[in-house]
Amino acid sequence: MRLSRYFLPILRENPAEAQIVSHRLMLRAGLVRQSAAGIYSWLPLGLKVLRNIERIVREEQDGAGAIELLMPTIQSADLWRESGRYEAYGKEMLRITDRHERDMLFGPTNEELITAIVRDSIKSYRDLPRNLYHIQWKFRDEVRPRFGVMRGREFLMKDAYSFDIDKDAARRAYEKMFVAYLRTYARLGLKAIPMAADTGPIGGDLSHEFIILAETGESAVFCHGDLIDQDILGETIDFEGDLKPLIERWTGLYAATDEKHDAARFEAEVPADKRLSARGIEVGHIFYFGTKYSKPMGAVVTGPNGETIELEMGSYGIGVSRLVGAIIEASHDDAGIIWPASVAPFKVGIVNLKAGDAAVDAACEKIYAGLESAGIDVLYDDTDERAGSKFATMDLIGLPWQVHVGPRGLAKGIVELKNRKTGERSELALDAVVATLTAA
Amino acid sequence: MRLSRYFLPILRENPAEAQIVSHRLMLRAGLVRQSAAGIYSWLPLGLKVLRNIERIVREEQDGAGAIELLMPTIQSADLWRESGRYEAYGKEMLRITDRHERDMLFGPTNEELITAIVRDSIKSYRDLPRNLYHIQWKFRDEVRPRFGVMRGREFLMKDAYSFDIDKDAARRAYEKMFVAYLRTYARLGLKAIPMAADTGPIGGDLSHEFIILAETGESAVFCHGDLIDQDILGETIDFEGDLKPLIERWTGLYAATDEKHDAARFEAEVPADKRLSARGIEVGHIFYFGTKYSKPMGAVVTGPNGETIELEMGSYGIGVSRLVGAIIEASHDDAGIIWPASVAPFKVGIVNLKAGDAAVDAACEKIYAGLESAGIDVLYDDTDERAGSKFATMDLIGLPWQVHVGPRGLAKGIVELKNRKTGERSELALDAVVATLTAA
Repeated sequence: MRLSRYFLPILRENPAEAQIVSHRLMLRAGLVRQSAAGIYSWLPLGLKVLRNIERIVREEQDGAGAIELLMPTIQSADLWRESGRYEAYGKEMLRITDRHERDMLFGPTNEELITAIVRDSIKSYRDLPRNLYHIQWKFRDEVRPRFGVMRGREFLMKDAYSFDIDKDAARRAYEKMFVAYLRTYARLGLKAIPMAADTGPIGGDLSHEFIILAETGESAVFCHGDLIDQDILGETIDFEGDLKPLIERWTGLYAATDEKHDAARFEAEVPADKRLSARGIEVGHIFYFGTKYSKPMGAVVTGPNGETIELEMGSYGIGVSRLVGAIIEASHDDAGIIWPASVAPFKVGIVNLKAGDAAVDAACEKIYAGLESAGIDVLYDDTDERAGSKFATMDLIGLPWQVHVGPRGLAKGIVELKNRKTGERSELALDAVVATLTAA
Repeated sequence: MRLSRYFLPILRENPAEAQIVSHRLMLRAGLVRQSAAGIYSWLPLGLKVLRNIERIVREEQDGAGAIELLMPTIQSADLWRESGRYEAYGKEMLRITDRHERDMLFGPTNEELITAIVRDSIKSYRDLPRNLYHIQWKFRDEVRPRFGVMRGREFLMKDAYSFDIDKDAARRAYEKMFVAYLRTYARLGLKAIPMAADTGPIGGDLSHEFIILAETGESAVFCHGDLIDQDILGETIDFEGDLKPLIERWTGLYAATDEKHDAARFEAEVPADKRLSARGIEVGHIFYFGTKYSKPMGAVVTGPNGETIELEMGSYGIGVSRLVGAIIEASHDDAGIIWPASVAPFKVGIVNLKAGDAAVDAACEKIYAGLESAGIDVLYDDTDERAGSKFATMDLIGLPWQVHVGPRGLAKGIVELKNRKTGERSELALDAVVATLTAA
């Protein structure tokens, strides 16, 4: 993409309304614009990041055997009356009356709708287990939306729902999602730690929040330092096999959010040099809730002996749009965003240091064409801004690699390669750029 | 994908509520379920088709130089008050009041919001031209939603908006979209014919509807038969070059919808043997509307001489979810859907005619693994339904190719290959299946 034809409205100044770094950087780097309180338009650069995150989330859901569908944003209130949540949900639910005076709502979550779909379609235990997910915009009418996409009103969420014949099968479904979540966050370049969460009246141990560590995180977390070093992507995973040993490695060590923290247990269980206290951001929540919805809504199947069985359910949420902000909170410096390679909107930015100079233009075009035909996503700053401004923009938008092309280097046949994360710069022969970045 | 693990709720009977063939087939083939009047959940098979269409639409928008972003579904009423459309829009607009009693709405279209975004970001003529598009769910509160996704209330639309410095440039933007639309429909396997549409108070010739031909189409259309034979995909297109000659080939021949039809002109301009009267479905609309929004909303740039210039705009819509229905209307037979290859949810269906038979199971597994590793999207019916039911399901869901694997054929080392569209069956050596379907 040529910057001269792109739509990347950079802000040079910090916007006054942004209180946290991710919000500031998302506005400055032209990722989003607020269209109403807590409601954002995703500009081209931000949308690319959002789609990259969505793709990784999807691949890991598919890999764990979940099946994608797509439920609508607008739901009928009658469905929520079946579960008893229509009255209970409170003011966060955006309630709507249509032209025929029917009560509708913008879905804040989808337990009722997916339960209705499964109730109408799955009749036999032989059609289980199933885990159905979708990635769809939700709306929660927060009383005080803030922190940009971290606590917006309209947000993109992946929510999966598992349906099983009994609690053992439901636990297996839960374990698959647990592992899929660990893999998802690791692929996004995040250190995510599962922490036990409230299960409400159902009890048991099948509720976890996934917290990523970020200095600017919203809450304090405490955990065993070894959790940080565990590498889920190094493991070979058989989702049909026994996932318990793996999960025990992730749940056997102390980890707790502020509100669940037990200082005495922390000191007793974790050696002093392994005690990690940090800041965290919640980026996912998985939850087993048994027959909470299947019972009132009559979602049953016929069992092997003709008996009627209420479905055992769980739900599994990842805040996809929230992750854009969370990743920035976890990965930035004073100059701007530092995108992990897996979600970067472009892998490479080319900086033309003297647009209009025939030799520089030609070298840039050559690199640009070479990278594009190597299948590398590249943003070419071909504008006539001055060099300092171009460097600042590239650092701000945080592409993993920058190629600086100027007349002085070119006279020697070289360009400068900059690694955004380390700040490392190296000189490179013009002809070596494509091969180097293909391998990078 | 193994059918035994998929979510494909087939209906054996025609649902009473469906009046048109695409609605019937979409319900029967498990593509969608109605979740409320005119609001559908997209089940896994339907979602795959929807995404395939969306991908083709996106590729052609990108190819024509449009840039993707994503605006939210919920908008502020204040924006629409700026353009004067809030009161004017009528009951089709889903109006919402949030918890702070602010007037909001579910966007039926996005002229106001995109104009606001551009107004706040583009200040100079040097940042033009721009064409920005998004693919997002819209809502129109139809008084009588019907015909399934063909006239639903919540629907997926691609809408693009062009911004230019003057009318000539706006015409060039319009022409690019005109050609991109022709390419899009051709890639979807459709015969689409552009027909002049009302321009309203603006006048001029820059408004076209794109109508696809389908026997069951909603309205009568009349055109010169040569339009059917023109092949846009055979043309080499330079979007930066002069598109006029190409567009004249598509607009120079008679074509009109029922309401614009002029029988006398039809007979005068079109030789008798070329007069085509058929049924059509509108699947896109492109429209130049000048400063209709930029003027009241103050979307201006500074021109080369420091003057203030109101932006010239156009909008370009494709009904993405509607196209799923429209394609079925154009491509089905008594047995079910016939998907064009480009949008088919899977390219191949494997029918195991005797699940449980070791040799048949092994042969199916081999074909399944071979196709998957060749990167071919395949649905394997590994269930223990009887053969007749499996054949009916495969014909109903309309995958381009079927591979029938049974004990009798296998004894001779062969399987049967069926082309869904032509009905043609051929025998094939087991080992030749992957290569044959890779080439198909």
